[in-house]
Amino acid sequence: MSRLIEYEDAPPEVRAVFDDIKATRGVPDVNNFWKALAVHPPTLARTWDNLKQVMAPGALDPLVKEMVYLAVSATAGCNYCVASHTAAARAKGMDDAMHGELLAVIAMAAETNRLAEALRVPVDPQFQ
Amino acid sequence: MSRLIEYEDAPPEVRAVFDDIKATRGVPDVNNFWKALAVHPPTLARTWDNLKQVMAPGALDPLVKEMVYLAVSATAGCNYCVASHTAAARAKGMDDAMHGELLAVIAMAAETNRLAEALRVPVDPQFQ
Amino acid sequence: MSRLIEYEDAPPEVRAVFDDIKATRGVPDVNNFWKALAVHPPTLARTWDNLKQVMAPGALDPLVKEMVYLAVSATAGCNYCVASHTAAARAKGMDDAMHGELLAVIAMAAETNRLAEALRVPVDPQFQ
Amino acid sequence: MSRLIEYEDAPPEVRAVFDDIKATRGVPDVNNFWKALAVHPPTLARTWDNLKQVMAPGALDPLVKEMVYLAVSATAGCNYCVASHTAAARAKGMDDAMHGELLAVIAMAAETNRLAEALRVPVDPQFQ
Amino acid sequence: MSRLIEYEDAPPEVRAVFDDIKATRGVPDVNNFWKALAVHPPTLARTWDNLKQVMAPGALDPLVKEMVYLAVSATAGCNYCVASHTAAARAKGMDDAMHGELLAVIAMAAETNRLAEALRVPVDPQFQ
Amino acid sequence: MSRLIEYEDAPPEVRAVFDDIKATRGVPDVNNFWKALAVHPPTLARTWDNLKQVMAPGALDPLVKEMVYLAVSATAGCNYCVASHTAAARAKGMDDAMHGELLAVIAMAAETNRLAEALRVPVDPQFQ
Repeated sequence: MSRLIEYEDAPPEVRAVFDDIKATRGVPDVNNFWKALAVHPPTLARTWDNLKQVMAPGALDPLVKEMVYLAVSATAGCNYCVASHTAAARAKGMDDAMHGELLAVIAMAAETNRLAEALRVPVDPQFQ
Repeated sequence: MSRLIEYEDAPPEVRAVFDDIKATRGVPDVNNFWKALAVHPPTLARTWDNLKQVMAPGALDPLVKEMVYLAVSATAGCNYCVASHTAAARAKGMDDAMHGELLAVIAMAAETNRLAEALRVPVDPQFQ
Repeated sequence: MSRLIEYEDAPPEVRAVFDDIKATRGVPDVNNFWKALAVHPPTLARTWDNLKQVMAPGALDPLVKEMVYLAVSATAGCNYCVASHTAAARAKGMDDAMHGELLAVIAMAAETNRLAEALRVPVDPQFQ
Repeated sequence: MSRLIEYEDAPPEVRAVFDDIKATRGVPDVNNFWKALAVHPPTLARTWDNLKQVMAPGALDPLVKEMVYLAVSATAGCNYCVASHTAAARAKGMDDAMHGELLAVIAMAAETNRLAEALRVPVDPQFQ
Repeated sequence: MSRLIEYEDAPPEVRAVFDDIKATRGVPDVNNFWKALAVHPPTLARTWDNLKQVMAPGALDPLVKEMVYLAVSATAGCNYCVASHTAAARAKGMDDAMHGELLAVIAMAAETNRLAEALRVPVDPQFQ
Repeated sequence: MSRLIEYEDAPPEVRAVFDDIKATRGVPDVNNFWKALAVHPPTLARTWDNLKQVMAPGALDPLVKEMVYLAVSATAGCNYCVASHTAAARAKGMDDAMHGELLAVIAMAAETNRLAEALRVPVDPQFQ
């Protein structure tokens, strides 16, 4: 299990990132991912900075982004990521029916991905 | 490369599926994935039947489903699937800005998936 | 694309492996995988030695082993490996119906793998 | 961890699937995968219906199908799936020697998959 | 295949990134990855900015970083990434012997990864 | 969880491998991976023999090899392998700064792997 850096033991550049996460998200403490990442302050700062930009509202709404994040994490089999992004998607409005349909699409895609690979299907000219 | 079964060479149970795909999608011919899958008619029929159910409008709208499908396919590295589902998402309204943000989320998720795995981050109690 | 080492350009330790592959398999030339691997003779020799041991008839018959090899390769999305092991399984007796069922199992497993990961299903006590 | 739906708390359409699983398999209770999937009844019903068709005896015998399922699950790194399909393969007759050889093939395939990808080996004409 | 944005057709914010890549690397043109990424200028800029930071000399030397990059890319089966990072590692001093040993480690790790997953090996207390 | 074979319960051919691992590494006991693999003595012997060859000092130094091993394991999401190879890399001299940069490269590579796949970037002529 990774070493987790708590706020009180963190150097100033880590505290600055933790403070920004807490303020941006309105939470009393950062979750374990950030405490683990704090073992390398430059990666912590860069990752948080990227995430803030990428997940900000834009052409796609935040809930769609969270569901895509969850789909990628389930496909990669990342247990921590599935747990945290399921919670995040729930917090942004994903209900049971949406969750169920999301799972069905993720699983269906995995199935046809394998079929296309196993059959070595040539790309149709209209998709090029 | 896989063997592709064309309509004129297909047995009746394959033609029936091809006809339903063409009618459902309003296209003059099925794409190569279905022609390749036709080497095993029961898998062709079952896969199309599943896909029709899973991708139908429901709690999630069809464009969101296509973008999730694309996210899974890109994560799995399925070249054919990326090509066909990028085209499908475009046809359902994904513009350049939406595509760009989708790619950014897919890539960001891959990055944090790896960090969480490499650090073996324990799941926070509130995510259980 | 990788550099391919042909027999006439190969050093003695590579020729010895190529000769053994040709004799064991009864083929006039080795396939591209071995020609590419020949850029590093120790890895060529070790890989062939392992493969010969692992794929030899034993508690599992050679066709079952080839189909498992194909299943792993399709799951990993390795295009070269899918092509070569589909050919090898065909040569050992896999017909269209067996191929079709094999693909169906590979795809079904991918689907339930994703569902189990996305739902973080706890392992049942009887499976421990 | 996922929410598990027990029989006594399940709606009628979930109970119908649970009853069919229990009758088909001759088991007193369904395993956790199905209890977790029951949060979305349409996906539960569709997945069970697919699995029954795909895993039925056909051109491949059921034990071969289970070992392929296990190979895919180990390649995908799905812990739950490895646990449940190892148990299922054992129940269908996989002994220690078969299990050992199966593991050896899975691992060997992973090794040559990586070599073929890392060397970008071009597909031989005879495999096309 | 992706749309590639050439310098002469690029908007100013894309040209600025292309100019920085060319200056940093001392090359006359950027490679296709950057031309493809230019369809979404914010992702282009962010990705280049991250890459410059991550790949800069630090506690690890640049050649080691390139070999790690290649190992990850081969494991993920990304054909483009394997091609470009093999070239980059060669340019930084990777010779045939180093390349061969790198491939051997990548393949060996894939093999034991699968064995550990397939056997569900519990983590030793001293590794926690 | 896998069955672990302890030295005192092991047959002679397993004890011989365990003895060689302990002597080579200077450790009082083998770790769980080997105890689990001992359920199939031929795979145990072959895997250890390969590992000894592949990880021996050569054109690449042992610490670089360990970091590559860790990179592959984190990319594949193998929890046991990440734990054991992080410990092994630490034992060979990887400090916090090196670990942090290694993680950053692994994560960055995952990100650009996904972008290259999702954009289907054509390989540049100079990389062929």
